[in-house]
Amino acid sequence: MKAIIQRVTTASVSVGEVPISSIGRGLCVLLGISMEDTQKDVDYIVRKILNLRLFDDENGRAWSKSVMDREYEVLCVSQFTLQCILKCNKPDFHAAMPAELSQPFYNNILEHLRSTYKPEMIKDGQFGAYMQVHIQNDGPVTIELVSPSAPMDPKQLAKQEKQQQRKEKQRSKGPSESGRERAAPRPRAQDPNASSGADGDVSSERET
Amino acid sequence: MKAIIQRVTTASVSVGEVPISSIGRGLCVLLGISMEDTQKDVDYIVRKILNLRLFDDENGRAWSKSVMDREYEVLCVSQFTLQCILKCNKPDFHAAMPAELSQPFYNNILEHLRSTYKPEMIKDGQFGAYMQVHIQNDGPVTIELVSPSAPMDPKQLAKQEKQQQRKEKQRSKGPSESGRERAAPRPRAQDPNASSGADGDVSSERET
Repeated sequence: MKAIIQRVTTASVSVGEVPISSIGRGLCVLLGISMEDTQKDVDYIVRKILNLRLFDDENGRAWSKSVMDREYEVLCVSQFTLQCILKCNKPDFHAAMPAELSQPFYNNILEHLRSTYKPEMIKDGQFGAYMQVHIQNDGPVTIELVSPSAPMDPKQLAKQEKQQQRKEKQRSKGPSESGRERAAPRPRAQDPNASSGADGDVSSERET
Repeated sequence: MKAIIQRVTTASVSVGEVPISSIGRGLCVLLGISMEDTQKDVDYIVRKILNLRLFDDENGRAWSKSVMDREYEVLCVSQFTLQCILKCNKPDFHAAMPAELSQPFYNNILEHLRSTYKPEMIKDGQFGAYMQVHIQNDGPVTIELVSPSAPMDPKQLAKQEKQQQRKEKQRSKGPSESGRERAAPRPRAQDPNASSGADGDVSSERET
């Protein structure tokens, strides 16, 4: 899953001149669901949207507060074009999850956002409609998120493999070890943006 | 380099309530320049922005016309936050090109856009200023572009290596071959979005 997150002063959606929803300060999230996405990707994206520190604190210190910390709103809009593969200059969208599957999947993401934060703070568009999305990007501040199922870049992969090998070595030298640990599958590829990897994510959950 | 391209009905930039620039129909491009970017990345991004088929033709056929084909405008805004690495939930921007280097680099991109299209069709923001970027995303349609210097995903890399090996085999069987061809360095990693790779890009240039 890919998400383009824009920090906004205000954002709204209209369909054929009719206003559908609007938020004040907060985040406008454009969400591109791929064929390969699972609940794991939902968990990751929801956690990141709600906990990313994209706002100043009360003293103006940048990058210190999340949308939940500041009690700001989220406008989430489904955006299949983010799962685009370019064939020369023509976009191809076969990697995007088809609408009949992505609509319940997307509703599940909204539910998850609402239950983790507050239902009234999460707004959305009109799934599948031709919309005008009015975004007042504040800064501008724009972040791209890629969820764990997305393929990892080779540098990250090499780094992770080395770390894994180092761990294996240390384990084989160490005095005690459970067989289960050694047999544990290699973790799935992580978000290339999340340089701290899976451990970082766990610690970040503790913080919030 | 990363670019977030939003198809817009209208877009504008203001700094402290003062309007700086605005466009009607066209593309709003948020541009994140990395430490590793070179002229090759500029050439790629400029070509893609101007030639991507994100607009309908006169008969309403989707994904058939570029911003140049339709004679629409481009609003380009520098956006270092796209070169973000997440440390837990805190964004880190050390991968972004520092402002003293990225400002001339960014101006070069604008120049290149203007000379390839028409100078009056390319607008921009105010480099380094705290801006409000008003984006009326039409659709919405949002595309993420990553230029060739960005690391490639492992599947693409494996595929490209196999193709390379196949070519080498065919060459060694073939009746004639120049030494220069064999000694040619492996092409740089391509945009993971551009599945057609370098050849596709060349052909796409011919089309336009």
